[in-house]
Amino acid sequence: MSKGLPKRSEDYSLWYNELVKKADLAENSAVRGCMVIKPYGYSIWENMQKELDRMFKETGHSNAYFPLFIPKSYLSKEASHVEGFAKECAVVTHYRLKNSEDGKSVIVDPEAKLEEELIVRPTSETVIWSTYKNWIQSYRDLPLKINQWANVVRWEMRTRLFLRTAEFLWQEGHTAHATKEEAIEETELMMNIYAQFAEEFMGLPVVKGIKSENERFAGAVETYCIEALMQDGKALQAGTSHFLGQNFAKAFDVKFASKEGGLELVWGTSWGVSTRLMGALIMAHSDDNGLVLPPKLAPIQVVIVPIYRSNEELDAIEAKAHEILNALKPLGVSVHFDHRDTYKPGWKFAEYELKGVPVRIALGPRDLANNTIEVARRDTLSKQMVNLNEVDLKTFIPELLEEIQTGIYQKAFQFRQDNTTSVDTWDDFQKVLEEKGGFISAHWDGSSETENKIKELTKATIRCIPLDQQKEEGSCVYSGKPSSGRVLFAKAY
Amino acid sequence: MSKGLPKRSEDYSLWYNELVKKADLAENSAVRGCMVIKPYGYSIWENMQKELDRMFKETGHSNAYFPLFIPKSYLSKEASHVEGFAKECAVVTHYRLKNSEDGKSVIVDPEAKLEEELIVRPTSETVIWSTYKNWIQSYRDLPLKINQWANVVRWEMRTRLFLRTAEFLWQEGHTAHATKEEAIEETELMMNIYAQFAEEFMGLPVVKGIKSENERFAGAVETYCIEALMQDGKALQAGTSHFLGQNFAKAFDVKFASKEGGLELVWGTSWGVSTRLMGALIMAHSDDNGLVLPPKLAPIQVVIVPIYRSNEELDAIEAKAHEILNALKPLGVSVHFDHRDTYKPGWKFAEYELKGVPVRIALGPRDLANNTIEVARRDTLSKQMVNLNEVDLKTFIPELLEEIQTGIYQKAFQFRQDNTTSVDTWDDFQKVLEEKGGFISAHWDGSSETENKIKELTKATIRCIPLDQQKEEGSCVYSGKPSSGRVLFAKAY
Repeated sequence: MSKGLPKRSEDYSLWYNELVKKADLAENSAVRGCMVIKPYGYSIWENMQKELDRMFKETGHSNAYFPLFIPKSYLSKEASHVEGFAKECAVVTHYRLKNSEDGKSVIVDPEAKLEEELIVRPTSETVIWSTYKNWIQSYRDLPLKINQWANVVRWEMRTRLFLRTAEFLWQEGHTAHATKEEAIEETELMMNIYAQFAEEFMGLPVVKGIKSENERFAGAVETYCIEALMQDGKALQAGTSHFLGQNFAKAFDVKFASKEGGLELVWGTSWGVSTRLMGALIMAHSDDNGLVLPPKLAPIQVVIVPIYRSNEELDAIEAKAHEILNALKPLGVSVHFDHRDTYKPGWKFAEYELKGVPVRIALGPRDLANNTIEVARRDTLSKQMVNLNEVDLKTFIPELLEEIQTGIYQKAFQFRQDNTTSVDTWDDFQKVLEEKGGFISAHWDGSSETENKIKELTKATIRCIPLDQQKEEGSCVYSGKPSSGRVLFAKAY
Repeated sequence: MSKGLPKRSEDYSLWYNELVKKADLAENSAVRGCMVIKPYGYSIWENMQKELDRMFKETGHSNAYFPLFIPKSYLSKEASHVEGFAKECAVVTHYRLKNSEDGKSVIVDPEAKLEEELIVRPTSETVIWSTYKNWIQSYRDLPLKINQWANVVRWEMRTRLFLRTAEFLWQEGHTAHATKEEAIEETELMMNIYAQFAEEFMGLPVVKGIKSENERFAGAVETYCIEALMQDGKALQAGTSHFLGQNFAKAFDVKFASKEGGLELVWGTSWGVSTRLMGALIMAHSDDNGLVLPPKLAPIQVVIVPIYRSNEELDAIEAKAHEILNALKPLGVSVHFDHRDTYKPGWKFAEYELKGVPVRIALGPRDLANNTIEVARRDTLSKQMVNLNEVDLKTFIPELLEEIQTGIYQKAFQFRQDNTTSVDTWDDFQKVLEEKGGFISAHWDGSSETENKIKELTKATIRCIPLDQQKEEGSCVYSGKPSSGRVLFAKAY
């Protein structure tokens, strides 16, 4: 019934790739590294967008739209920014095709060469700050809190559906503030919003923290992040929020007249989450039977599958199914009655398991006679018979969905607890990393040199310096030099 | 108080450009032909998206996402399609930048040349049909009804904000069907949905019709459209829906096993509306004082402006304003209380007029004493005193918004009636076109030759062959040859 999914324990990576394709989430396109997000996958992304967009607006942000193309020279204006992105930029050099001389094919028209090449945005700081220069004159124009939903392109060499694709969808917030304090507050606010979204909607526990210099966004003064742990013990960066200081204000000369009458550089932030979250959602919860979706993001929360041998039986079941639909839909429950006669119940059961539908209701003739339904939970794969004479579906189903949502989170939380290990020696570090994986909490001397060396030796990187931990003196797990606190190491996606 | 807008009667084109900028809708970016859609403009677009998306989903369509890039060779697979789009394609040829030898600038890395150039999608038929080939095997996979919200790029030489930009935002629907009849039905359905959206939400009367061969989409068998009339007497194509026949199925070899056991080519449609609709919305209703927005798309439907001389007065007004907010918000009315003390009431009045807010409520100390409010309508610029002892705002405001919505439509409808002229001679055709503009209903012999000649002589084109008119024999207004019905000519955006 598993529709031929490989087992996680045998080949986690293959399991992921096959699951993404078989559950109709996404597939590779003819263009190297670019994916097609299929309707079922896209509807999950739409649910994510809806909640995030609401949270952004509730905290005073507005959406806008900035150009796809960035003049090559813009990218160079912020030194570390260009260094971070130049190596993976899609470059537009021409603006026209024409027929080849033999008329058999279409070629790039050499006469239609752009004066200045354009970069397809890998991120929009440069084009946005060049615009902000005109929008910001006085303290009255601040804060400016704008978000955009957009596609971006980073020419990655090794790509994986959702996790690392040449083109991906994301939102990028870009804000401008009068003071450093306010900008830092915004940076932290957005990290907290991301964490809240991940935990409440995705059922994904995350560690909030700060990136080491090595992992910092190109152009940021400080990068805040949320880090999650996948079932194979690898970490996944689920969202980042950058305090840009005055770096982009300097690069694009964005100044404002202060209340006191001075002319000051603006302080900035930027923050983003992407379709990578789809990868996190899939890998954090799913099992060998397929997807496990948290009810709050599931396109279909409840599916009703009829079990019948004759048309008369189907008619009676349909009547009952519509009663259930009519009871649940007004409550905002997304419920689907699958009355297709081209597929058998067993096929449908496997299909909805594969697609992670949280609750499945099976309805047969005996259920009608007894006024019962069989309710199956996707997350625990458990079933129960519900007697409708005793139970009101209008409270039972919403409560069950809530229970599943909480259960999924708790399971992932427990997994992370079980797979976060404190180590104090380099031997233990290597041993835990190799045998168990997960997050390793260890002392670090604070130098890029040590971080690079550890990465070179073990492939583990510092995922973050967690924000919510107590200060603790110690010595670096690798160099033995003094350390003022533990950081989280892991191999990462 | 008009914030320096030019008058429509003096320079319509300048009036439009200035209005788009001053009302904070959009502006030109540093990249030629690409616009920045500002938060206020974008929020109107979001309202459009929300309604259209709902209408698409209610008619069985799902959203998905396909790649931004199209291999150059794909574009060539459908002959007339490549001819239509090759001349205005942004072409990606490289995937990396590097430092120049002197280290002073960043250049395109000549070693990072793509094997096959990629086109930034001008429309997605080719990449989508190449995907559909894998998705469609049997009649069970049909119909396939997918939409995507995306950015597209057409390298236009003369651009205008919203109306014609190198990059624009749109939705593009792409459906696949088992029969010709079903595909034509879908094409017509989507044209009707566009018409319904334009009329009900944008307050924009449209003519539904079919394009002549000259104006047909490159790759379509038939193009349906909705055409609207702007205040300067020029027409604007507001949406198109294409019956693709089996053209793309042939080009990409998309066949299905029919119920009867045969192998048949799939029938297709595609349909789209874009941020061009923003241009139509602005030009159809606005006046010399600024935007006039239909309430159903207005980001702010009602604004409350306090008028006061002391803080005590403001406190009392605030209390009343919050009463009004609390009464209207639960009804779904978007109402904003502008209590900024950095601007005077007169400035705010002009600002909200410029931004097209449908209803403005002014609240001063005398209003508090009398339990009245002053209500101003943006569309008619009329004011009335409303006595709250006699009138219940909870019914008054929603009714007023409805009245404004209807009024805006009716005004535009009347304008179109007054500016649609039936002509039967070539002299009249030229005279009406020059002196009055608008839609000209005239007989046409059905040939591209005549249409081209008329365009050459007058710049007028056939906007559409209207669907809802009676058959009428006549002779072509230009060639005198027989004609079986009138078509609509106009100069167009």
